[in-house]
Amino acid sequence: MAIEGRSDSKAGGRVRYGMVGGGEGAFIGAVHRLAARMDDDYVLVAGALSSTPEKAQRSGEALGLDPGRIYPDFETMARKEKRRKDGIEAVSIVTPNHMHAPAAEAFIKAGIHVICDKPVTTTLKDALRLKKLAADKGVIFAVTHNYTGYPLIRAAREMVKSGQLGAIRLIQVEYPQDWLTTPIEQSGQKQADWRTDPKRSGAGGAIGDIGTHAFNLAQFVGGLEVSELLAELTTFVPGRALDDNVQILLRYANGARGALWASQVAPGNENGLMLRVYGEKAGFHWRQDNPNYLYFTPHGEPTRIITRGSAAAGEDAARVTRVPPGHPEGYLEGFANIYAEIARAIRAARSGEALDPAVLFPGIDDGIAGMAFIEAAVKSSKKGGVWVKL
Amino acid sequence: MAIEGRSDSKAGGRVRYGMVGGGEGAFIGAVHRLAARMDDDYVLVAGALSSTPEKAQRSGEALGLDPGRIYPDFETMARKEKRRKDGIEAVSIVTPNHMHAPAAEAFIKAGIHVICDKPVTTTLKDALRLKKLAADKGVIFAVTHNYTGYPLIRAAREMVKSGQLGAIRLIQVEYPQDWLTTPIEQSGQKQADWRTDPKRSGAGGAIGDIGTHAFNLAQFVGGLEVSELLAELTTFVPGRALDDNVQILLRYANGARGALWASQVAPGNENGLMLRVYGEKAGFHWRQDNPNYLYFTPHGEPTRIITRGSAAAGEDAARVTRVPPGHPEGYLEGFANIYAEIARAIRAARSGEALDPAVLFPGIDDGIAGMAFIEAAVKSSKKGGVWVKL
Amino acid sequence: MAIEGRSDSKAGGRVRYGMVGGGEGAFIGAVHRLAARMDDDYVLVAGALSSTPEKAQRSGEALGLDPGRIYPDFETMARKEKRRKDGIEAVSIVTPNHMHAPAAEAFIKAGIHVICDKPVTTTLKDALRLKKLAADKGVIFAVTHNYTGYPLIRAAREMVKSGQLGAIRLIQVEYPQDWLTTPIEQSGQKQADWRTDPKRSGAGGAIGDIGTHAFNLAQFVGGLEVSELLAELTTFVPGRALDDNVQILLRYANGARGALWASQVAPGNENGLMLRVYGEKAGFHWRQDNPNYLYFTPHGEPTRIITRGSAAAGEDAARVTRVPPGHPEGYLEGFANIYAEIARAIRAARSGEALDPAVLFPGIDDGIAGMAFIEAAVKSSKKGGVWVKL
Amino acid sequence: MAIEGRSDSKAGGRVRYGMVGGGEGAFIGAVHRLAARMDDDYVLVAGALSSTPEKAQRSGEALGLDPGRIYPDFETMARKEKRRKDGIEAVSIVTPNHMHAPAAEAFIKAGIHVICDKPVTTTLKDALRLKKLAADKGVIFAVTHNYTGYPLIRAAREMVKSGQLGAIRLIQVEYPQDWLTTPIEQSGQKQADWRTDPKRSGAGGAIGDIGTHAFNLAQFVGGLEVSELLAELTTFVPGRALDDNVQILLRYANGARGALWASQVAPGNENGLMLRVYGEKAGFHWRQDNPNYLYFTPHGEPTRIITRGSAAAGEDAARVTRVPPGHPEGYLEGFANIYAEIARAIRAARSGEALDPAVLFPGIDDGIAGMAFIEAAVKSSKKGGVWVKL
Repeated sequence: MAIEGRSDSKAGGRVRYGMVGGGEGAFIGAVHRLAARMDDDYVLVAGALSSTPEKAQRSGEALGLDPGRIYPDFETMARKEKRRKDGIEAVSIVTPNHMHAPAAEAFIKAGIHVICDKPVTTTLKDALRLKKLAADKGVIFAVTHNYTGYPLIRAAREMVKSGQLGAIRLIQVEYPQDWLTTPIEQSGQKQADWRTDPKRSGAGGAIGDIGTHAFNLAQFVGGLEVSELLAELTTFVPGRALDDNVQILLRYANGARGALWASQVAPGNENGLMLRVYGEKAGFHWRQDNPNYLYFTPHGEPTRIITRGSAAAGEDAARVTRVPPGHPEGYLEGFANIYAEIARAIRAARSGEALDPAVLFPGIDDGIAGMAFIEAAVKSSKKGGVWVKL
Repeated sequence: MAIEGRSDSKAGGRVRYGMVGGGEGAFIGAVHRLAARMDDDYVLVAGALSSTPEKAQRSGEALGLDPGRIYPDFETMARKEKRRKDGIEAVSIVTPNHMHAPAAEAFIKAGIHVICDKPVTTTLKDALRLKKLAADKGVIFAVTHNYTGYPLIRAAREMVKSGQLGAIRLIQVEYPQDWLTTPIEQSGQKQADWRTDPKRSGAGGAIGDIGTHAFNLAQFVGGLEVSELLAELTTFVPGRALDDNVQILLRYANGARGALWASQVAPGNENGLMLRVYGEKAGFHWRQDNPNYLYFTPHGEPTRIITRGSAAAGEDAARVTRVPPGHPEGYLEGFANIYAEIARAIRAARSGEALDPAVLFPGIDDGIAGMAFIEAAVKSSKKGGVWVKL
Repeated sequence: MAIEGRSDSKAGGRVRYGMVGGGEGAFIGAVHRLAARMDDDYVLVAGALSSTPEKAQRSGEALGLDPGRIYPDFETMARKEKRRKDGIEAVSIVTPNHMHAPAAEAFIKAGIHVICDKPVTTTLKDALRLKKLAADKGVIFAVTHNYTGYPLIRAAREMVKSGQLGAIRLIQVEYPQDWLTTPIEQSGQKQADWRTDPKRSGAGGAIGDIGTHAFNLAQFVGGLEVSELLAELTTFVPGRALDDNVQILLRYANGARGALWASQVAPGNENGLMLRVYGEKAGFHWRQDNPNYLYFTPHGEPTRIITRGSAAAGEDAARVTRVPPGHPEGYLEGFANIYAEIARAIRAARSGEALDPAVLFPGIDDGIAGMAFIEAAVKSSKKGGVWVKL
Repeated sequence: MAIEGRSDSKAGGRVRYGMVGGGEGAFIGAVHRLAARMDDDYVLVAGALSSTPEKAQRSGEALGLDPGRIYPDFETMARKEKRRKDGIEAVSIVTPNHMHAPAAEAFIKAGIHVICDKPVTTTLKDALRLKKLAADKGVIFAVTHNYTGYPLIRAAREMVKSGQLGAIRLIQVEYPQDWLTTPIEQSGQKQADWRTDPKRSGAGGAIGDIGTHAFNLAQFVGGLEVSELLAELTTFVPGRALDDNVQILLRYANGARGALWASQVAPGNENGLMLRVYGEKAGFHWRQDNPNYLYFTPHGEPTRIITRGSAAAGEDAARVTRVPPGHPEGYLEGFANIYAEIARAIRAARSGEALDPAVLFPGIDDGIAGMAFIEAAVKSSKKGGVWVKL
C-alpha cells in the first residue's frame, strides 16, 4: 500500500485539467476536485465553473485559478485551452445532465480528454454520438460511475470472473435514499431542483440519478448481458415531474435473473446502495455505507468477512487501497480511485507507453449502457410495466 | 411480562389437542408441539403422526401418548376423538401440503378446531371450501403464519395502523434461503423431497414454502389491498420440478408499490426474511434472523433502535413478550405466540366469554389470501411475467 | 436437530419437580418453569412459591398445582415431599440469594436433587458446606449459569479445548446493563429492591448479579485457572447499598490475562454480555444479545461467521440446538438446555445407567468458584483495588 | 458541506510545509501528505524524508520536490528553510518516535510551526521542554492524534460538554489490533521492527503506539481529569522487547471510573478502536472501523443512530464533514480534518487575525498528557500493577 505514485510512473508530471460546472452551490464538482487531488495526480488550472458568468468568475477566484483561465462558458474554455501550449489535457464535466453532451462535444473536438459525470447524457442518441466523436479524435472518455472505484467492488468483480461463484444465477441490487421524501424541490433546494426537472435531468429522475449507478455496479461486478427488463417507475411525491422510485426486473442472456430497486423516498436510507450476487457455488453481499467489508459465502460454509486491505481481498483491491484494513476508506477514496485510474490512462496516452492492463475505469460504453437502460426502463414503465428488450 | 397465564384466565384448564403428521423425521411438527407447550396452554393427547401406520405408532409412543389415542390415520382419529367426552378440542395439521385440506375437512366436520400449517391447501378452491365448512360448523381455523407472532412485527403493525408512517408508499419484503442451492432432493433429503414435489407441495415451490410467508408478513404489517401482481418464478437447479426463486412486483389499491423476493438458492442466506416499509412520514426495517430489533426512522430524524420488551415497543408487542429486552427471544417464542393466541380464542369459545379484542392470529382468510397469491403468481409467471389481478 | 427426546431415552417418564420461590411478582421463577417445560422433560408438581403463605397459595393455584402440594414454606415441602411415593425428584430454588442455602440444605437432606439459581449462596462458606452435604447424600446439585447453555458458547468452548486458538492469551468479558441507572429500588421496583439489598443479595451487587455470570462464562469457555484478581467495585447511584459497576483485572496461572466489566448503570446496554477470547493462533467473539453468531478469526485469515445450527458449529452445539440456522434461538432456549442436561443426569441417576459424557451443566463447583470470585473481588476492592489471590 | 475553502478564508494562499521522515518504505508519512493535500490547504515544498541520505534524495525526487529543497537531514533543512524568503511555514515530523524531539527542537528554534506524529516524544521530560521552547518562540505545536478529527467524535465531545449525558460515570475505551500476534519484527517487517524497539519507540510498545491514541480519545471526548491509574503491560510474543497488550484502570477526579484496553495480539481485530461513555442521563458508543455512526441512548429511550453529516450530528461535526450522510468518510478524512484545523491556525497566525474559536486540534499539552500517561502506566506495571497518581 502506498499513497502517491503507486505502481505507475509520474513521468511528465501531474495531469493538467479543467472543470465545467462545479462552482458555488454545486455538490459533485467539489467531490471531483478532491478526488483528483487525493493522489496528487492532477492539477486544476482552468474552469468554466458556472453557467452564470459572475458565479463562474467568483468560483474560479475562490479556487485560486489563474484569472486568464477563468472562463465564462465552456465553448470559450475549449477554444482557448486548445490553443495554449500548457492547455488542459483533460476536462471534468460536472454540470446538470443536459449540459454534459454539448460540453463534452466541445472538448472532444478540441482533442481534450473528457471525464464526465453520470448519466453521461440525457439521450442514448447523444451518448452514441459522443462515442463516435471521441473515437474519431482519439480522446479518452471516462464516466464517473464512482462506486466501481471501491476496492472490495473490484475484489467482488474478480471473484465472479475467476469463477468462485460458479455460474451467476441472481443479482439483487438496490439504491434507496430518503432525501426526496418530501417535495423539497418546491422550496428551492438546488440539488433537488435540477434533479427533478426533466429539462435538466432528462427523462429519468431516480432512475437516472441513482438507478444508473446501481445498474452500472451490477454490470461491473456481474458481467452479464441483459436481454430484457421490466420497469415500474413511480412518482410518489405530489407535484414531482419525474420518478422517485424505481422497481426493475432483469432477465440476463444466460438465464440469470436480477432485480433493481432505487428510491429517493425511503426514510431511513441515506445512500443504501447494496449489491448481492448469487451463483451456483457461492454468494456475496456488499453495502456502500460500510464499504470496507465484503461478506462472501461459499455454499455450505461459514460466511467470510473479507476486509479491504487484507490479503483475502486480492490484488485488484490492493491496487486501489491506501490504508490498512480496519482504517476505513470511504466514498472519496473510491471516487479518487477512478481519477487515479484515468490519470494512468492519460499518462500512457501522453507518453505513448502501453497502458497497464489492470487499469480499469468506466468509459463511454458504460455511459451508453446506462442511457440504454434508462430509455428501456422509461419505455417499459410508460407501456404499463412490460418486458422490453435491451 | 410473565410466562404462564399471562393476562388471560386458564379457566377450564389446558386445551386438549391432537396432531396429524409430525412424526419421525418430520421437522415442523416438533416445532408446533414445542410452541404449544411453551406457555403451558395445551396438552397433547392424541395423534395420527404419520401416514405410515408403524411410524405413527412409534411416534405416538415416543411422545408418551395414551396407546388408545395413537391413530393410524386422521379419519379414524377425527371419528373416535369426536365421540370421546375428553376428546381433543383442537388439532394441529403439520403434514405435507396436499394432506392439509382432507385432514382439515375431517376435523372441522367433527367440530374440532383446526390449527393448520401453511400454505393452508394446495388450491385456492380448497381453501375457500374449508372456510365455508368451518363457518358452518363454528370451529376456529388458524393458519400458522408464525412470523406474525414476533413481538416487533406486532409493534410494526401497530405503528402502521396508528399512522406513524403516514400513508404507506412502499413495501419491500424478501425471504432468501440457500438450502436448495444444490439438488439435495435427488439424494433423499426428506424436507427437500416433498417441498420440491408438485404432488405434495402444490403448484408452487419457493413461492408456496416461503413466498407465502413473506407475502403474509407484508400484508399483516402493511394492511394494504393488493390490486395486481407480476411474477417471475424461476427454477435454477437442473431437474427441479418447482420454482426455487421468486421475484414479484406488487401494485396496491392505494397506489403504493411493493416488491417481494424469495429464494432457496442464495448462498449465505439461511432464513433471511426481511421486511421494509416506507411511508410519507417514516420508515422501518426488521429482520427475522435478529428479530429483537426494529429500526424505525421518522423522516429527517435519527433512526431509533426499538428493542423487544422495551417501553418503546408498545402494548401490542408487550402482550406477546416473555423476557426483558437484551435477552433475545427467537423463532420458537414467535411461533408459541401464535399458539398462545389461539388458546385464548379456544378458551373464549369454550366458555362463551367474549374474546379479548387484542387477540390476533392468522386464520382461514389469511390462508385464502396466500392461496390466491400463489395462484396469481403462478399464472403471471406462466404467461411470461405479466400483470395479473389479485 | 429435534425437539423432544433428543438423543436420550425418556425411560421412566418426565422428572417430577417442585419449586421454591418464583410466585407472584417474581421474574426468574417463570423462566425456570418455561425452561423445564420446553423439551417436555419435567412436570411441576409441588411448590413453596413465596415466603408469604397467602402468595404461595395463590401462586400454586394459578399454576394448577394439586392443592395438597402447595406448601407454605420450603421446610414443610421438603419434609412432606420426601415421604410421598410420587414425591419430587428435584427442586428448583429461585428465591433471593439469601434463601438459597437454607432451602438447598433442606432438600439435599431429603435426598432431592437441587437446581439452584446463581449466585449459589451468599457466602463461600455456605457453598462449600452445600457441596459436602450434596456429596454425602448423593444428590445432583446444579447451578443455573444459564449462558453456558447457548449452543455457540459450547462451540466456543470446544474450539478452545481442541486447540484451534492455540494457547489462550487474553479473555475479555463484559456484562453491561442499564436498568439501575437511576435509584429505582427507592420506588419499590421489586427486582431492584432485593438485588440492591445486602441482606438478601449478599456482599455483592452487580458483581453477584451479573459479574458472576460473566466470570462463569469466561471460565466455562476459557478453562483457565485464575491465580489473582484486582477489583474496583463502585457504587454510582447515591443511596445504593451495593456496587453497581465492576471492573476486574485477572491473571491466569498460565500467564494469560483477563478483564471483566459488569455494570448496571451503562445506558444503552440491556443485557450486553460479550465474550472475547484470543490465543496464539486465533480469536473469537460472541454477544448474548444476538447469540446465533460466533465470529471466529484464524490469525491472518478472514473472520468466519459461524451460525448456530450450521455444520461449522460442531457437535457440541448441535446437541443443544432445536431449529435450523437463520431461525434464531434465544435466552429461553439456552436456559432450557441447562434443564435438559440436568434431566439427562437425573434420569441416569434414576436408572443407574451411565451418564452420556457429553452432558454438561454447571454444578456446585461452579457455584463455589463464583462465590470465591465474589469474595475475592469484594476484598480486593475494599483494600483499595489490590491484587488478591483466588 | 463543502470541500475546499470551507468557512475560512484562504488569504495568502496555501501553507508551505516540509516533511521530516516519511520517505521510501514509510507508512504514516504518506498519510500525512494525503491529509495535507485533501482540502488543498497545504503545499509540500521541502523534505528530509529519510535518515539515509540516498533514500532522502530518491524520495524527494519521487515526490517532485525542488532539488534544492531535498535535504539530507533535518538540521540542514531547518537551517536553510529558515533563511529562505519562501521557506516552509510548517514542518510535519513523521519519523520513528526517538527522532521527534530533536527534529521538533530544530524547527521550533527556526520559528517554524510543528506538526508532530504521536507519541510526541519518548520521555515526558522532552515533551515538557518542547512546550516551553514552542511558547518561547511563539510557534504552533500540533500533535496528530488523528482520531479526534472524526466528525462524530466531535459530536460526541459536544454532547458531553453540553450535558446531554449528565455527569460522566464511566469511560470504556479500547484499541485492539492483531498485526503483532506473531513475531513479525524478527523477519524484518519495517513497521514492526521499530515499533517494538525501545531505542526507537521509547519505553512503551502497544501503550505508546495505540494506547496513547485510546487515552487521548477518551480525554478529548470525556474531558475528565485522571487522578490515578493502574496498568498491566504484558508481552505475549516471546522475544519481543516491549509490551504488546495493555490493560489499564482509571480513576477520575470527579469519581468516574475508566478502563482502557489496547492490544496488538488479538486476532480478528484490525484497528478496533472503540469508545463508550456513560453518564447519569445517557450513554453512547462509537467504533473507528465504521465511524459514520454514533449510537446514542438517552436512558430509558431507544438508541438513536446518529449519522455523520446529518442534522442530528450537530455543528461541531458539520464543520469537519465533506460529503452527505450515507456516503462514508474514513480514516484519511479524519486525519485531514486535523490538518485543515491546523491550517486555519497557521493562517490566523500568519495574518494576525483572531482564530475562530471553533478550531480544534491536539497540541503539545495533549502530547504531554500522553507521555505522562505512558510513563505512569510503565511505572505502575513495573511495580506489579499498582495505583499510580497521574
